[in-house]
Amino acid sequence: MPFASRPVCPAPVGAPGSACYTIRIHSAGGRPVAIIRKKTGNFLEDFRIGSVLRHKVGKTVTEGLVNAFTEFSMTANPLHKNRRYAQLFGYRDMLLPPGLVMAVVFSQSVEDISENARANLEYVDMRFGAPVHVGDTIESTSLVLGVTPSSKDKTLGVVHVQTTGRNQHDVVVLTYERKVQVWKHDPDAEVVKASTSAPAVACELVLPPYDPATPYRTVAHLSNADTYFEDFTAGDVIEHSRGRTMTAEHIALTATLDNTSQVHCNQHMIDQNPERFVGGQLIIFGGIPFQLCLGLSCPDVADNSLGDIVYRTGRHSAPLFAGDTVFARTEIATARDLAGRPDLGILDTILRGHKFVAKNGAAEKVEIFYLERSIAVKRRSHYA
Amino acid sequence: MPFASRPVCPAPVGAPGSACYTIRIHSAGGRPVAIIRKKTGNFLEDFRIGSVLRHKVGKTVTEGLVNAFTEFSMTANPLHKNRRYAQLFGYRDMLLPPGLVMAVVFSQSVEDISENARANLEYVDMRFGAPVHVGDTIESTSLVLGVTPSSKDKTLGVVHVQTTGRNQHDVVVLTYERKVQVWKHDPDAEVVKASTSAPAVACELVLPPYDPATPYRTVAHLSNADTYFEDFTAGDVIEHSRGRTMTAEHIALTATLDNTSQVHCNQHMIDQNPERFVGGQLIIFGGIPFQLCLGLSCPDVADNSLGDIVYRTGRHSAPLFAGDTVFARTEIATARDLAGRPDLGILDTILRGHKFVAKNGAAEKVEIFYLERSIAVKRRSHYA
Amino acid sequence: MPFASRPVCPAPVGAPGSACYTIRIHSAGGRPVAIIRKKTGNFLEDFRIGSVLRHKVGKTVTEGLVNAFTEFSMTANPLHKNRRYAQLFGYRDMLLPPGLVMAVVFSQSVEDISENARANLEYVDMRFGAPVHVGDTIESTSLVLGVTPSSKDKTLGVVHVQTTGRNQHDVVVLTYERKVQVWKHDPDAEVVKASTSAPAVACELVLPPYDPATPYRTVAHLSNADTYFEDFTAGDVIEHSRGRTMTAEHIALTATLDNTSQVHCNQHMIDQNPERFVGGQLIIFGGIPFQLCLGLSCPDVADNSLGDIVYRTGRHSAPLFAGDTVFARTEIATARDLAGRPDLGILDTILRGHKFVAKNGAAEKVEIFYLERSIAVKRRSHYA
Repeated sequence: MPFASRPVCPAPVGAPGSACYTIRIHSAGGRPVAIIRKKTGNFLEDFRIGSVLRHKVGKTVTEGLVNAFTEFSMTANPLHKNRRYAQLFGYRDMLLPPGLVMAVVFSQSVEDISENARANLEYVDMRFGAPVHVGDTIESTSLVLGVTPSSKDKTLGVVHVQTTGRNQHDVVVLTYERKVQVWKHDPDAEVVKASTSAPAVACELVLPPYDPATPYRTVAHLSNADTYFEDFTAGDVIEHSRGRTMTAEHIALTATLDNTSQVHCNQHMIDQNPERFVGGQLIIFGGIPFQLCLGLSCPDVADNSLGDIVYRTGRHSAPLFAGDTVFARTEIATARDLAGRPDLGILDTILRGHKFVAKNGAAEKVEIFYLERSIAVKRRSHYA
Repeated sequence: MPFASRPVCPAPVGAPGSACYTIRIHSAGGRPVAIIRKKTGNFLEDFRIGSVLRHKVGKTVTEGLVNAFTEFSMTANPLHKNRRYAQLFGYRDMLLPPGLVMAVVFSQSVEDISENARANLEYVDMRFGAPVHVGDTIESTSLVLGVTPSSKDKTLGVVHVQTTGRNQHDVVVLTYERKVQVWKHDPDAEVVKASTSAPAVACELVLPPYDPATPYRTVAHLSNADTYFEDFTAGDVIEHSRGRTMTAEHIALTATLDNTSQVHCNQHMIDQNPERFVGGQLIIFGGIPFQLCLGLSCPDVADNSLGDIVYRTGRHSAPLFAGDTVFARTEIATARDLAGRPDLGILDTILRGHKFVAKNGAAEKVEIFYLERSIAVKRRSHYA
Repeated sequence: MPFASRPVCPAPVGAPGSACYTIRIHSAGGRPVAIIRKKTGNFLEDFRIGSVLRHKVGKTVTEGLVNAFTEFSMTANPLHKNRRYAQLFGYRDMLLPPGLVMAVVFSQSVEDISENARANLEYVDMRFGAPVHVGDTIESTSLVLGVTPSSKDKTLGVVHVQTTGRNQHDVVVLTYERKVQVWKHDPDAEVVKASTSAPAVACELVLPPYDPATPYRTVAHLSNADTYFEDFTAGDVIEHSRGRTMTAEHIALTATLDNTSQVHCNQHMIDQNPERFVGGQLIIFGGIPFQLCLGLSCPDVADNSLGDIVYRTGRHSAPLFAGDTVFARTEIATARDLAGRPDLGILDTILRGHKFVAKNGAAEKVEIFYLERSIAVKRRSHYA
């Protein structure tokens, strides 16, 4: 059987190394009659404007997932860790942190949208809806909003999608747009630039009502005393003190999310063509620095937040690798009222992640993450 | 106290390095009166044909265990991940994947059967029974079927056992035979070749009934559209596209299963006698490539399976180490009806795992795992 | 903005490298008006005798936490793993192992007590109370008992606290004293030696009553047959057979506990000043060897224990690093009756952990952990 010697996971022409397909050899009468290369995931030419991709598998959130993909981030908001606290605030149970909700929905979309991606370019208008708890089942869909072939490189182009995750009651928990640079499978395939506008998706952060009879102050010592809405002013800049070194643990963390992208877990593929991959090594899945920057910044800006409302835009400014230590910084852009909720205020912030890279004997600071993030923060007047 | 300087975990004569014992010093009147070397696990001469070993501890399956020992494998069958899906198919809850059921039962048998093993030789007639869910408690026993001293090496021999795992209702969830090469403690101990035949153990895959009124098609998008029974023909060969690099994570993964074997977790022991251990390094527990090959192959052959029926035979063809990347391939040997279930068909498959090893500057493909695997697969006619 | 180029996490004068603070730049009219260095955690001069620190966040115990921070230790007591067994003994559910209860409470105290510590010196009178199960919420407080400036080094001193953890019913699950060497923030700050005595904290191990009608013997095969109270004599010494190599997994394990100390997870901080940190590398959190030594010793001395009563004193004799393999040894100091419980006896033991360090080509044994540990052990006469 000559097929057995075929290299596994060969790179299709024009998609240098980052794409895979399954080889399926059909037989009849005991002899191979057809070799089918079944593409894993979609390539640029496979996307059709307006089509809806219903992503596979789905995921019921377990205490195992939450422990693995929350705690590594060093988040400190008791809503994610302390049932007594969460229930006193009116939630059914502890909440998944926003970075985990994002990572679950995003990962469900990977096989269909970005398994053959070169780079993730931008998150746009990411909004959170119903709270997510252990036991909820999340399923996701993506709507194709745009396809733009590269004018410079015939092997590449940009796909623009709107991805939405829903729980078992068909209620939206997250929606966002994403722009991603995707390989073509056949560099000569014709791809015509096309786009459509994003439809409105009803998705607003669900907040429990403020109840003056609830003894919120009895748990005020569980969060910081200087992170209420009143403590922030537009223009404030906070360099968060803590750092966290990521290790090869990222491979298992990514698998925990059902993220199938091979650039995070297939070292053999990288070793075959190291120069074709960013950094020539396994790259850490973006959901990890995303969650980590939210976590590292939490004790200084978000441990008195009731939730993340919207991320207007976000991007991974540079790749992250095993061994890198991540730090974070928050800038307060605006502090404003939240209509109808005198107990809360909105902080519009810019969250940046960075790492240090050795250069000429010194450690050079490199930005790895940028997120425009708006959160609903408790007012001291009502809660402490 | 001169005993304190004694090396911990010394190798008994004839059992080169892979065996341990606890040293217990009994005292009287404040002075040591006896030194007892308590062997950890059994050696070849300790096994008695027909004896039943009731393994210790037992294990209640938690969401933590399932997250750790399912997700790393990249399995894609929604029955293991999506409660909504599993319940629509008639299960009480999500199912543990078969590789996890196997790894739990197998690991419970390690201390008694293979803590002093040199190599695991073969799995035989491994059959699955009742589905296993989070909250179930698994306990296991092994019946000694055969002992065969090596004709070439007086320090070794083969033990043949039948191991069976049961849940808290005393219902069988798994049964299989295993042949394992075990060290002698005393190379001069006499061991007579003996064997008995394996008794029948009632263990048949429990499948929920097909219900024409159930809206199965409403969840058909959660699995692949081209992996129904009708999609396979005897002779088909599928090279699965994805690979997964294993890291030192294997040490914790193995501990998660209560597997006590030192060759997976005791680097100091290896360093004392590297030439005595396969590869001179920690070897990855076989349950890991077992689960991983099932997972990597899942999206192409088993994401529309309702369960694994039997593994007629299986073996680890070569060892796996931290840093290796695992790939998988499935061959369809037979596609046949399942009596009484027109909605399902049986695929008899051969699942192979492999890795690549650097040799003369090239990457040589090495088979690491072989499993004859029969699964019950949904027919498109009934489900999609 | 010149502030951006400031190094993150600089070491304050006098606190060489182990301490951090958040830099907060307040603005007005879009211009920075104040730079506030918010210290993360307390320094020596911040502690006031008699003050009570109510630690933040709290933690609801999940199946994810228990899986991660129990199984790595290779503990073998079925009370921690087998629900059927635990419930037959009269517990509501499986118990958290004592090392996990300790690690959760201890970690909650880190930010307030030891984020700016140089070294943990001693655990004193650590007593366990109510059993802890999955679903319980643990919150902790510390009372400052003493502050002693170093007579030799004006940058350091010793803080003595009493830390107590309670569950959601306000019942004590653990209380202990701790002595820890803490940096001063300002080496010239005046610190006067002061102390107060530890108040009594009601905390006694809750044991289920013995019930002669319960068929304990039906599960006796799940624990060892030679680890009942009758099997031990004062003076016995047991070198436990198994070892376990710790890897970089320790970073995530520590985060799982909400432990915020940077010396366990911030490689960049270490790299900036390696000579200032013990071993010049990330140090493994003490809760890990603590739990691991309890686990490695379990099958030989504690798999028939119903619980840990008190640790009179304990200390980390030497640091542990990724790559080290941990072994354990138990000495039986006393075997005595437990008043009112003829079914149980108390073993007062000394548990030691050690590792091997290469020195002059040989592996030198180094003690890393010492614990005076008293446990309540089943008598064979009543249970087997």
